[in-house]
Amino acid sequence: MPRRKLPPQTPWTNTPDDVEAAFYDTLTSGNVEALMSLWAEDEDICCIHPGGQRLDGHAAVRDSFAQLLAGGGLQINAEVQHRWHSMSSAVHSVVERMQVEVDGQTQWGFVLATNVFVHTPAGWRLVLHHASPGVPQTPLDIILPGDVLH
Amino acid sequence: MPRRKLPPQTPWTNTPDDVEAAFYDTLTSGNVEALMSLWAEDEDICCIHPGGQRLDGHAAVRDSFAQLLAGGGLQINAEVQHRWHSMSSAVHSVVERMQVEVDGQTQWGFVLATNVFVHTPAGWRLVLHHASPGVPQTPLDIILPGDVLH
Repeated sequence: MPRRKLPPQTPWTNTPDDVEAAFYDTLTSGNVEALMSLWAEDEDICCIHPGGQRLDGHAAVRDSFAQLLAGGGLQINAEVQHRWHSMSSAVHSVVERMQVEVDGQTQWGFVLATNVFVHTPAGWRLVLHHASPGVPQTPLDIILPGDVLH
Repeated sequence: MPRRKLPPQTPWTNTPDDVEAAFYDTLTSGNVEALMSLWAEDEDICCIHPGGQRLDGHAAVRDSFAQLLAGGGLQINAEVQHRWHSMSSAVHSVVERMQVEVDGQTQWGFVLATNVFVHTPAGWRLVLHHASPGVPQTPLDIILPGDVLH
């Protein structure tokens, strides 16, 4: 009996944290293809950008990130503040700190995000990114521009 | 050897959908005590109201709902549009339709919510409610004021 061929595993599929780190890395690099490879293929997926409506399915999610990253990658630092993990799903509550230009000046905007991951045959994948505008909740000297996810 | 006493089960703890229905029922009735009993006791909990910062822990979450419901219950209808369930956790993406008074006129506001539930010894409980302002995505004749969660 032939062995069933398992989908290829990649380093970023090992844990939900790996997928999330790769998600923010791809936002920084502006690589839409790499970013979309982090989402589950066979599951419903959806994405809510800050102030936006809910986008359902791969095509709508891809289009939104292609538009968001058309000018290049984002300067973004993310810190996970809550984790709820089970064997096959994981939810993270994240504070994102994003560099934005306002009237020619560099400022930092805060976004609150909920990221949901499920364990698929191909490893852990993203199924939901829900982001909404936030306000600074952490002293600025704790979240520095050089900080990374972990 | 004495049998370990299990926490009391209530009808609304049977499934994540039961807890969610009870959540929106308590928002409608304005019963803060009943609403807070739906949240996990021993887990980190957090809540993000539309446009608000993240509130961590029971005291902050309770205060926010006490303030929100000080004038009475909300006219709110909710429709689950995505479900990701595992044995011990569940995530729902929900569209909430809320009756609001604007300049003396009744209007319907839309909110996008992510609700996260975990299975505890006392049954299913809420651990995260992340809500952000939404826009109508569904024709108004599909979500009517009389609609309920299921």
